[in-house]
Amino acid sequence: MFTKQSVVTLDLEGVLTPEIWIAVAEKTGIEELHLTTRDIPDYDTLMKNRLEILEREKLTLSAIQEVIGTLEPLEGAKEFLDELQTMTQIIILSDTFQEFAYPLMAKLDFPTIFCHNLIIKDDFITGYNLRMKNQKGRAVEALRNLNFNVLAAGDSYNDTEMLSSAHQGVLFRAPDTIIKEYPQFPTTREFSELLTIIKDWLKKL
Amino acid sequence: MFTKQSVVTLDLEGVLTPEIWIAVAEKTGIEELHLTTRDIPDYDTLMKNRLEILEREKLTLSAIQEVIGTLEPLEGAKEFLDELQTMTQIIILSDTFQEFAYPLMAKLDFPTIFCHNLIIKDDFITGYNLRMKNQKGRAVEALRNLNFNVLAAGDSYNDTEMLSSAHQGVLFRAPDTIIKEYPQFPTTREFSELLTIIKDWLKKL
Repeated sequence: MFTKQSVVTLDLEGVLTPEIWIAVAEKTGIEELHLTTRDIPDYDTLMKNRLEILEREKLTLSAIQEVIGTLEPLEGAKEFLDELQTMTQIIILSDTFQEFAYPLMAKLDFPTIFCHNLIIKDDFITGYNLRMKNQKGRAVEALRNLNFNVLAAGDSYNDTEMLSSAHQGVLFRAPDTIIKEYPQFPTTREFSELLTIIKDWLKKL
Repeated sequence: MFTKQSVVTLDLEGVLTPEIWIAVAEKTGIEELHLTTRDIPDYDTLMKNRLEILEREKLTLSAIQEVIGTLEPLEGAKEFLDELQTMTQIIILSDTFQEFAYPLMAKLDFPTIFCHNLIIKDDFITGYNLRMKNQKGRAVEALRNLNFNVLAAGDSYNDTEMLSSAHQGVLFRAPDTIIKEYPQFPTTREFSELLTIIKDWLKKL
C-alpha cells in the first residue's frame, strides 16, 4: 500500500544502470570517453568534449545505440524498482538523453524518466538539448511545490543539487570524494540498504 | 523511440479504470454513491456527501477495498499504456485516493500516479487529504515549467483545468454536456483514436 504522498527520485547511471559513456568507451576502445560527471563536474564542458570525440571518430548514433542495447540494468535494480513502486511514486531524473536511455528503460519496464534529448542529423549527433539547466534540482522543487514529500538518491556531482533540494537525500555507490564533500547525506552501497532507508523515511511521513 | 521531451497526463477513472465510487454503489446497492464529478462539479461537496453516507452505512475501508479489488482496468487500457510508454512519459493525474487506487495501479503495472490520500481511523474513513486544490492543473503547469510538452486526456469536469493548462487537451469518453461546453478539445471514444491524436501531436514537436 502506498504510504503518504511521496515521490522517490533516482539517478539512472551508476544507480540503476551502468554508466553509458563508460560502456561506449570500453566497447569502442576510445579512452577519453571514460570521463563522466564524477571527473568533470561541469556538464557542458564534458558534453562538448564528448561530441568532439564522436565527430573525430565518426561514431554514429546507431553505433552507440547498438552498444547501449547490449547493456543490462545493474544487478538487483529491476527487483529494487519492482518493490519500490508498491510503496511510493518513482521518477528517474537523469542527465542522459532519451535516445540513449530508451533500450535500458525498456529493460526496466519503462519507469517515468525526465532527461534530455540529442540533436541528430544523418545518424550523427550534432548537438544536444538540455531540457533545462539543473533539471534534477528543479524537478524536485516542482514536486515539493505540488506538496509531495521527496526522497532523492544518486551517486554523482550532478545529483547533489537534487539531494539537497529533497526532504531526504541519500548517496548510493558514490565515490569517496563526494561522500567526503557531502557528509550530510547517508551513504549506501546495496539496494537493500537504500530500500531500508526509504522504508524508514516513508514510515515517518 | 521517445520523441521530443513530452509528458502525457491521463485521468484514471473513466479513462483507464471504471469509476470507483459507482462500482462501490453498485456492489453495495447504495444509490446515492452513484454521483460523481460528472454530476456534482464541486469536489468538496461531493466528497463530504460520500463520507456521510459511508458513516451512516458503517462501510469500512476494507469493505471498499474488497470491492475495488474485484475491478479490472477498462478493456484495452493496459495495452494502450503499454504502447504509449514506448513513445512518451506518462503521469496519471487523479482525484481519487491512493488507498483506493492501489489495487488498480497494480493491475496496470504501477504507472506513476499523482492523487490524494484518505484519513483512516480503526478501518473507517474519517476524512481525506487533498494533496492540493486543482492538483491536475497545477501538475501540468509544473511540467510545462520543467520545459515539457504536455498533452492531457480526461473525461470529467475535474479534468477540464488540466486539459486547458496542457499544450493539447483531449476529451476521452466525456459526457455530451462536457463535449458541448468545451468544443475546443478534440473528442475521442476509443483508445485507438486517442493514440492516433497523441502520435500526431508527438510528430509535430
